[in-house]
Amino acid sequence: MITGSGILPTFASGTFAPNTLLGSQATNVTFDAASIFSMQADTLATGLFMRENTFSQAALFAGESPLASPRRTTRSLMATGEGTITGGTMTRTFDEVKVRSVIASVISGVASLGLKLDPLNFGMDEHWRIDLHSLNIASMIDHTLLAAIASKEDLKKVCAEARQYKFATVCVNSANIPLVARELEGSGVKPISVVGFPLGAMDSDSKAFEAATAIKNGALEIDMVINIGALKSRDLQAAYEDILAVVHACGDVPVKVIIEASALTDDEKIAACMLAKAAGAAFVKTSTGFGSGGAKVEDVALMRYIVGNEMGVKASGGIGSREDVEKMILAGATRIGASKGIAIVTGKAAEKTGY
Amino acid sequence: MITGSGILPTFASGTFAPNTLLGSQATNVTFDAASIFSMQADTLATGLFMRENTFSQAALFAGESPLASPRRTTRSLMATGEGTITGGTMTRTFDEVKVRSVIASVISGVASLGLKLDPLNFGMDEHWRIDLHSLNIASMIDHTLLAAIASKEDLKKVCAEARQYKFATVCVNSANIPLVARELEGSGVKPISVVGFPLGAMDSDSKAFEAATAIKNGALEIDMVINIGALKSRDLQAAYEDILAVVHACGDVPVKVIIEASALTDDEKIAACMLAKAAGAAFVKTSTGFGSGGAKVEDVALMRYIVGNEMGVKASGGIGSREDVEKMILAGATRIGASKGIAIVTGKAAEKTGY
Repeated sequence: MITGSGILPTFASGTFAPNTLLGSQATNVTFDAASIFSMQADTLATGLFMRENTFSQAALFAGESPLASPRRTTRSLMATGEGTITGGTMTRTFDEVKVRSVIASVISGVASLGLKLDPLNFGMDEHWRIDLHSLNIASMIDHTLLAAIASKEDLKKVCAEARQYKFATVCVNSANIPLVARELEGSGVKPISVVGFPLGAMDSDSKAFEAATAIKNGALEIDMVINIGALKSRDLQAAYEDILAVVHACGDVPVKVIIEASALTDDEKIAACMLAKAAGAAFVKTSTGFGSGGAKVEDVALMRYIVGNEMGVKASGGIGSREDVEKMILAGATRIGASKGIAIVTGKAAEKTGY
Repeated sequence: MITGSGILPTFASGTFAPNTLLGSQATNVTFDAASIFSMQADTLATGLFMRENTFSQAALFAGESPLASPRRTTRSLMATGEGTITGGTMTRTFDEVKVRSVIASVISGVASLGLKLDPLNFGMDEHWRIDLHSLNIASMIDHTLLAAIASKEDLKKVCAEARQYKFATVCVNSANIPLVARELEGSGVKPISVVGFPLGAMDSDSKAFEAATAIKNGALEIDMVINIGALKSRDLQAAYEDILAVVHACGDVPVKVIIEASALTDDEKIAACMLAKAAGAAFVKTSTGFGSGGAKVEDVALMRYIVGNEMGVKASGGIGSREDVEKMILAGATRIGASKGIAIVTGKAAEKTGY
């Protein structure tokens, strides 16, 4: 369980630890032409898991505007606990001016909708601690079976596994929610449904209807896919109203917004996260698992940076090992979508399965 | 335009032409363990296009039951017209006993639904002529853009192309129907929408809702994806009622049922076609273009064989040339889904695009 959290003043705390900025196994991350930040990730064995905003004090004390210069954030992991997690150090260097400029353009883009967004509500770095003594990775996993060919037998097996390993949820297509809700009854494992999946190109009314139907049938969380084509068309209104329609249809049921990061430029990822937060979604989620790419550490880091502390970030698509999961948590994930949850929690090699 | 058609008595006509059974470029088709038929296809330059049921008279006159022995059907193409189509000869050998046994098991499987199906309504071979002088391939093409990242600009371009080349329809995701309906106004090209796409694992109520919404927004045909998981679970009732829900929601608007043949065994393909026909669908369709395989000649032939003459068969997924299209028509297709319609009708190489 992740404890602590809550938004702390952005520039108020953290240790300045420039020596941790580059790990010995640092890997360079390549971005497309629209790239606005760079990052290195490295892993270490560790115990207590702590992420820190480490850059800002020096700049602040020097009287510089934090917006006027590149911003550097280090999240570090310190070996002080008994946990067995393999943690790491991640260094991320944003070009804060560019990020702020994208944020401003999204805010101005939605102003015509009568939607007034506070720029300070986006792009604030989070600051939290995870107590490894109580960290339970199984409880962060959405045990997932979304293949079109999944049979009732396959679905029952996944539900039994989720009971056994105490996963957070079982994530399935909406046609399978009635069965999964029955199978999970009394288990504490939540049935959850994808909506408008996996293309996100279903009309908004139908997404809202599918979400409401899934909830009526027992879904306790909804993972919807954003209208990617609307983002590509710079139609922020359509993309926003699409999310809003689903959020409204879901009432108190938390909505995750799948942004399909592999299909987006960094600008579009920022816009998608902002729209999801503005519309009242509970999570942003990286990937459907059916697109051209799955969860990437750098996407999770950017998404966490944009939405701040108060939203969830779900990493999904291609996650197959405990090591993968730990990298995602380090980057800012609070939920993991995977069909290989058992391999992740047991360390045994996963069976080859569709996502 | 395809002329002629209508169901003729199955064993009443045709020429017995055993010499045409194997073409010089015959290719063997490999099936999975559930395989129930085999086929060779070969292409020839030709004019008048004629398909014939050639096997049965000999067996019939010999007093054999046609069900007691393997059935052999040859469709041949004769060069008597001026058209430029490249046609071919296709030889298909069904194990009629096995096909009939699958048909009987589907009929018995749906009897508990109160659904009484006439076995003679399925598995009758068709017999028609196509007059190449009036054959217009463009008018058989659903010009298709289903990529999640399709922008408004992309969609407008596809609509302009469809106007120019006089394609039958423009096939898009439901979120894009309002735009496409506006763009195609007055063109004679129909806007059509996919539903429950591409996994088919959306609940039936939502598929029906999405179909009705698309129609309200201007869609004139609906291409729905069957519940593949229900088929895999041998839950024919769920698979049937899923189609029926969409057909009912569509009123007079024709429904195509995408069976995603690459994910199915031959038994499941037969069941899917029977259920689609029994539910009142207008077409069966091979593929979403997002699955593990696209249109295959042998699937089109089997689908045509099962549904008979009175339904449409749409071949879709990976069709990129006039030659591909002609093979599909030869096998029994009456509609072609393709993103490469311009390459097909002009013979120019297609741009590399998503389906």
